[in-house]
Amino acid sequence: MKQQRKSVAIDMDNVIADIEEQAIIWYERELGVRIPKEAMHGIPEKDAFPDQEALFRFIHAPGFFRTAPVIAGAIEALQRLMLNFDVYIVSAAMEFPLSLYEKHQWLAEHFAFISWHNIVFCGDKSIIHTDYLIDDHPKNLDFCRGKAIMFTAGHNRNHTQYNRVNSWAEAIELLESEL
Amino acid sequence: MKQQRKSVAIDMDNVIADIEEQAIIWYERELGVRIPKEAMHGIPEKDAFPDQEALFRFIHAPGFFRTAPVIAGAIEALQRLMLNFDVYIVSAAMEFPLSLYEKHQWLAEHFAFISWHNIVFCGDKSIIHTDYLIDDHPKNLDFCRGKAIMFTAGHNRNHTQYNRVNSWAEAIELLESEL
Repeated sequence: MKQQRKSVAIDMDNVIADIEEQAIIWYERELGVRIPKEAMHGIPEKDAFPDQEALFRFIHAPGFFRTAPVIAGAIEALQRLMLNFDVYIVSAAMEFPLSLYEKHQWLAEHFAFISWHNIVFCGDKSIIHTDYLIDDHPKNLDFCRGKAIMFTAGHNRNHTQYNRVNSWAEAIELLESEL
Repeated sequence: MKQQRKSVAIDMDNVIADIEEQAIIWYERELGVRIPKEAMHGIPEKDAFPDQEALFRFIHAPGFFRTAPVIAGAIEALQRLMLNFDVYIVSAAMEFPLSLYEKHQWLAEHFAFISWHNIVFCGDKSIIHTDYLIDDHPKNLDFCRGKAIMFTAGHNRNHTQYNRVNSWAEAIELLESEL
């Protein structure tokens, strides 16, 4: 049976980990200004903040990935998907070595039901082969060997060439319609 | 041109990092007995040591992966392969979270010419899709989507069903013959 299950690769940042919200929280804490999520629409994430070096500082700072909030509905959605799909977490973590360990710990805290067998930290995702990839970045979706599904984030709202889901409820609906 | 290059996934442990030698060094340091490499032939690695818990202790101890010797010829071989192939380091690191950071640092020290784009740390390797996989473990080679190449290690000497290379010189010869 296992061979017949389809596989889904799921990105972490802005798909199960709310990096936008975390950046807003850290920006407010450091600079005293709360940037609304809407300010991030349609532009690169870093450009949403008046201090454009801030996001670069945050992603290199201890704790940023470790304490990120979970995207709404992600935990329940992955548990449900695992009933019918082989679910893999596939996260770009090599650019920021500190994030390797923090992302591993974060997954252990929030997604302990995901086996270490099913976790991949990589640079580019072009050699990852699954039936589906859920990601927020065109740079990953464009080189995907399976079916690309764009998970809505502020920065990707103007892209129209992908299958798009705006929430984990929509992602479940789309994937289960393919069973 | 880049699209036409073939891709090679290269395992770390016992392929570019000499984990057998490192285990022998650590065993001798802790227990005062030097186990010859030949004692590892044809049996699981841990069984080569009178104290069969030793290897388990080592792989969970800080520094074990970080200070492992480089396999003879690996650095020059990978530099040469990169002239004609897209080379990826694909290492199982998720079972031992500490090894994530240590393996990243080890690569930065010995293989700084490998971009972070081309590094993958994963659990199982079944979703990795490259034209070739060079690995010492049947459990990885059996689920490989490309051509499997077994790199000789003590524990795998009795396996006869794989394309086998005994050294990096042989690996280069095999891969370049496919150009």
